[in-house]
Amino acid sequence: MPKVGIVMGSDSDLACMSEAAEILKNLGIEHEITVASAHRSPGLLAEYVSGAEPRGVAVFIAGAGGAAHLPGVIAALTPLPVIGVPMLNKALAGADSLYSIAQMPSGIPVATMAIGGAKNAGIFAATILGVGDKEVRERVREYKRGLERGVREKSEKLANIGYKAYLDRGKT
Amino acid sequence: MPKVGIVMGSDSDLACMSEAAEILKNLGIEHEITVASAHRSPGLLAEYVSGAEPRGVAVFIAGAGGAAHLPGVIAALTPLPVIGVPMLNKALAGADSLYSIAQMPSGIPVATMAIGGAKNAGIFAATILGVGDKEVRERVREYKRGLERGVREKSEKLANIGYKAYLDRGKT
Amino acid sequence: MPKVGIVMGSDSDLACMSEAAEILKNLGIEHEITVASAHRSPGLLAEYVSGAEPRGVAVFIAGAGGAAHLPGVIAALTPLPVIGVPMLNKALAGADSLYSIAQMPSGIPVATMAIGGAKNAGIFAATILGVGDKEVRERVREYKRGLERGVREKSEKLANIGYKAYLDRGKT
Amino acid sequence: MPKVGIVMGSDSDLACMSEAAEILKNLGIEHEITVASAHRSPGLLAEYVSGAEPRGVAVFIAGAGGAAHLPGVIAALTPLPVIGVPMLNKALAGADSLYSIAQMPSGIPVATMAIGGAKNAGIFAATILGVGDKEVRERVREYKRGLERGVREKSEKLANIGYKAYLDRGKT
Amino acid sequence: MPKVGIVMGSDSDLACMSEAAEILKNLGIEHEITVASAHRSPGLLAEYVSGAEPRGVAVFIAGAGGAAHLPGVIAALTPLPVIGVPMLNKALAGADSLYSIAQMPSGIPVATMAIGGAKNAGIFAATILGVGDKEVRERVREYKRGLERGVREKSEKLANIGYKAYLDRGKT
Amino acid sequence: MPKVGIVMGSDSDLACMSEAAEILKNLGIEHEITVASAHRSPGLLAEYVSGAEPRGVAVFIAGAGGAAHLPGVIAALTPLPVIGVPMLNKALAGADSLYSIAQMPSGIPVATMAIGGAKNAGIFAATILGVGDKEVRERVREYKRGLERGVREKSEKLANIGYKAYLDRGKT
Amino acid sequence: MPKVGIVMGSDSDLACMSEAAEILKNLGIEHEITVASAHRSPGLLAEYVSGAEPRGVAVFIAGAGGAAHLPGVIAALTPLPVIGVPMLNKALAGADSLYSIAQMPSGIPVATMAIGGAKNAGIFAATILGVGDKEVRERVREYKRGLERGVREKSEKLANIGYKAYLDRGKT
Amino acid sequence: MPKVGIVMGSDSDLACMSEAAEILKNLGIEHEITVASAHRSPGLLAEYVSGAEPRGVAVFIAGAGGAAHLPGVIAALTPLPVIGVPMLNKALAGADSLYSIAQMPSGIPVATMAIGGAKNAGIFAATILGVGDKEVRERVREYKRGLERGVREKSEKLANIGYKAYLDRGKT
Repeated sequence: MPKVGIVMGSDSDLACMSEAAEILKNLGIEHEITVASAHRSPGLLAEYVSGAEPRGVAVFIAGAGGAAHLPGVIAALTPLPVIGVPMLNKALAGADSLYSIAQMPSGIPVATMAIGGAKNAGIFAATILGVGDKEVRERVREYKRGLERGVREKSEKLANIGYKAYLDRGKT
Repeated sequence: MPKVGIVMGSDSDLACMSEAAEILKNLGIEHEITVASAHRSPGLLAEYVSGAEPRGVAVFIAGAGGAAHLPGVIAALTPLPVIGVPMLNKALAGADSLYSIAQMPSGIPVATMAIGGAKNAGIFAATILGVGDKEVRERVREYKRGLERGVREKSEKLANIGYKAYLDRGKT
Repeated sequence: MPKVGIVMGSDSDLACMSEAAEILKNLGIEHEITVASAHRSPGLLAEYVSGAEPRGVAVFIAGAGGAAHLPGVIAALTPLPVIGVPMLNKALAGADSLYSIAQMPSGIPVATMAIGGAKNAGIFAATILGVGDKEVRERVREYKRGLERGVREKSEKLANIGYKAYLDRGKT
Repeated sequence: MPKVGIVMGSDSDLACMSEAAEILKNLGIEHEITVASAHRSPGLLAEYVSGAEPRGVAVFIAGAGGAAHLPGVIAALTPLPVIGVPMLNKALAGADSLYSIAQMPSGIPVATMAIGGAKNAGIFAATILGVGDKEVRERVREYKRGLERGVREKSEKLANIGYKAYLDRGKT
Repeated sequence: MPKVGIVMGSDSDLACMSEAAEILKNLGIEHEITVASAHRSPGLLAEYVSGAEPRGVAVFIAGAGGAAHLPGVIAALTPLPVIGVPMLNKALAGADSLYSIAQMPSGIPVATMAIGGAKNAGIFAATILGVGDKEVRERVREYKRGLERGVREKSEKLANIGYKAYLDRGKT
Repeated sequence: MPKVGIVMGSDSDLACMSEAAEILKNLGIEHEITVASAHRSPGLLAEYVSGAEPRGVAVFIAGAGGAAHLPGVIAALTPLPVIGVPMLNKALAGADSLYSIAQMPSGIPVATMAIGGAKNAGIFAATILGVGDKEVRERVREYKRGLERGVREKSEKLANIGYKAYLDRGKT
Repeated sequence: MPKVGIVMGSDSDLACMSEAAEILKNLGIEHEITVASAHRSPGLLAEYVSGAEPRGVAVFIAGAGGAAHLPGVIAALTPLPVIGVPMLNKALAGADSLYSIAQMPSGIPVATMAIGGAKNAGIFAATILGVGDKEVRERVREYKRGLERGVREKSEKLANIGYKAYLDRGKT
Repeated sequence: MPKVGIVMGSDSDLACMSEAAEILKNLGIEHEITVASAHRSPGLLAEYVSGAEPRGVAVFIAGAGGAAHLPGVIAALTPLPVIGVPMLNKALAGADSLYSIAQMPSGIPVATMAIGGAKNAGIFAATILGVGDKEVRERVREYKRGLERGVREKSEKLANIGYKAYLDRGKT
């Protein structure tokens, strides 16, 4: 089964990027996770990308902040899909990493997620694998159904106990 | 072979979105193209999405401008990957459609392209199909090699004729 | 008497959105409050909207953050007025939800409030009902008069005790 | 029947704001249209607003650009609903007028439309009147159905003639 | 001697706006301070502005946040100079109040200060009074000289004790 | 009578900045106009500013684009009021010059006008001079009255001929 | 003598980037100019950068638009200074390329110029070479003096002929 | 050996700007650090800049926030390279200082670093000195190699202990 390769530009992104690993585990999809910076370790990054395809990696997830070049640099080196996750910094409220990932030039696309959207990157990777793998596709379908069930439960609870009690739950 | 379904919110987006169809044709990937608005024709859109998977559509490309809800609304209805293309309007210089597509909530990802990046959406769709289809993957790899060849040719021409002659070419 | 239907995309918006319920209660206007996501529970949302008009709902208030599609998706399904409340997130300082709600395409308007403006959404719903209901209109008029009285009282207090004492009040 | 009062801060906004009048005419809703600036003619504006309610105006539509105070200043003077239309200028790409209209303080809401969204302001005014007037509500419902029919027709045409012929239509 | 009238839209702005009063006191300039909202208390505001000129107010300082219409509404009612102070809110990082104050239409200027710049508003009011009052102008000149002396002292201290000791000062 | 000194960073700003000279002429206020860049001609600028006060200049108007330091650099050199006019460039839609002028540090205020607001800078200079000069103040009051008369005339014309004829005027 | 290497991501940037070559020629500094994309031709770019230092290149100037990774990717591969020039596109008014170049992570700086500032990149390269080369430094000093002379001439012309004649020059 | 002169507009910038001094010390490069404001102490700043070149300063690093004119004003006074560091404030999330430093006019470049990028300013100063000084260039090369080694170590650690243990390290 193909693997998902999760890369981040700095270990300070790990708390966020580990959400991609968590959801992939929940969806039963093999993955690996590493640190490799497009700027501080271009050699390590090139090694990682060139070794990934032979090792069975079929989708990359890359998270980076500020001038977030990591996803784009990976996309330049591989014909496999690259999903980019912009990290949130205080400066510019994340607009810098969103623009640096989304505004890729013609020919080299990166699939940009929301700022801080590592979990969605994992889900999107599963969605990609689901194109060729019926079982994975059904797991994604079921996952989305589960989201709807979750909202229905909250909706019913809110109807039953009222918004004041609902808001007070967290306080006890 | 799986198909790519290209949808746009308005026929005023067609000039841009047809670039996705063009590149898919060049990469030998079957596709269909339609208009269906999340806001003006929610019924038509739901019909289109529910009919697409049985018809063999495996990847969606959705382009929309302003409060660009189309890609997200499709993503809510399918376990298949959805690629979103923000359209450029004068107001807010495209930031509105970029944010409306990229900032999807946890659970329902959309793969956001650059503003106006319909061609890249087509390439990314091919990349997705290449995960499970060696031949398509090789076509994408070859396409990217072709890009590098193109840059090399321009680089050599610039070296040979100098930047003044290079700039004057277009004027004759 | 017509009712106001308050919907939010996630129960994490409840603390903010309950301000709409509070002010509607104060203005003596019937209302209901629920959770239904445009993305995670499109089925639930469609059920909610189609059931609302027969149940007497005449105005919708919808709050959502990030790619805030909820108000627009409701507006696509009903001829009733929809008031949208953009939620504030750290990323992009709320510009994403403001743009996603305000920049609706021609034909399907949403009445956008300020970022976090759930209380104003309640007041605006009352204003709408006041168009056809003299008593409600007078209550809104009286509410606005009360605001002016409140400012006058603060203005007089500030004149009487001076700004230093005024600022020190909260500290004791 | 209640009337809609359309106001704009400058006659340079008339080309845009007349779209509100056009759609109201199409929906069979009485309206009036005038120029009154919050800054250059505060006296005229106050006269206009205080005379409007007795004259049967039930909803205001106010369009303004830059530091677009007009809708907010009207909302301060009336218990009736005020719909604000941000005008597009080159500077700041319309963000200034959008923020100046949407970010109203607690207590005095304005229903903000998209930048340049005068037509939607007219539709929203109809939606408001439809709360208390079944016939108007049905006209809005029918208008929205017409939008869907329009999209379906375009969708079919695109399917029939293909995107190249579709794009070439405008050129002949 | 002419007076400076300090107005704010809400008493939540008082902590910031009191800095204008403080610096005016230090510069020996008479002033008054009040709360009056352009939106919640338009009547009170109009009374305040029309009474101010006869009472000797020659310059207005107006602070407001969000859709910050207060300075512009005052400027519409008086031929005296109005200085606007944008307040900082979390949403939009203060861009909303900056744009709402700075982007005034042709004919009705407001002198916009930095976001949160109430102290500078006081200094600018003194600068205005200094145009016609030599003594005030000399006080402003001396105030600016004092700023330069203050920087020189810090510069020397930094040279003498080094940056580590300088940074450690505040920690003891 | 005190004079107004109009300075601009580049002669490409002259078309815009000459509007300040025009309105000052109309208001009967003496003025001078020059080019002096904070960056390209710091020596010339310092000479200009130090010579201005002895020559009777009492108010400065400074227009600049991009990293628009000119108004702030003048304000550092004089106790007289400085009015800043941000110029509009394509890049960043004028936000760069607005921020560079408005966000001055504590102690050295600049009165920021709207982007491209040279005419308003002239009016604000007159407003400043009107603080100490009754006649000038009355001319400003009369100018603002004239604005209201102008709006009333347009309002009446629009009422008389209707918006279609009004819009067609310019086309004949 | 060390050389300046000018690189751009696409030949569509050549009209802008040739301004760097022009000013370097005027300042008597050797340079070369080429096209190499970080995304479309990563191999070519790596070859170019590794060959540049042995060939005598001492400073890089790199221009790119959108997700402008070129300068950062070069900076990752060399200990030589890299000057980045953000290109202007319609979407996002150049903020995307400015952020992608300026917001580099700790350890790998890029010297960012203004949007479209290729000429300044050339001047800054000369400034860098002037650190170790007295003659180049004097040429830069003389160039800056020439700028001041140019402003003085314009200032005198404006004083002599008045702003109306000055504005009319270009029209004849 | 040439020196680096570090200047900041306010001692509140010292905690950030001292990172430039730290890295220069680590790279064995002589430097000095001072406070001098372009606005509050223009005289002190001019003295500092004119004395710096004779004293052996060859590169300036200037940090400033808000309307961050300091780097540009220094660049107007010297033919030496000036590196600008935008400081982060809450208002506008640092966009104001970034724009005020980066958007310099033609002729007077400033090398802009990331918001808060004082450490990178120190590294870039070393890079500039390395153009003419082989030893410094090798130290920069070695510094960059060290960055790659650091990332490799983290990458291996993450591979060895897994992301959960890696994340838990900081908590013990």
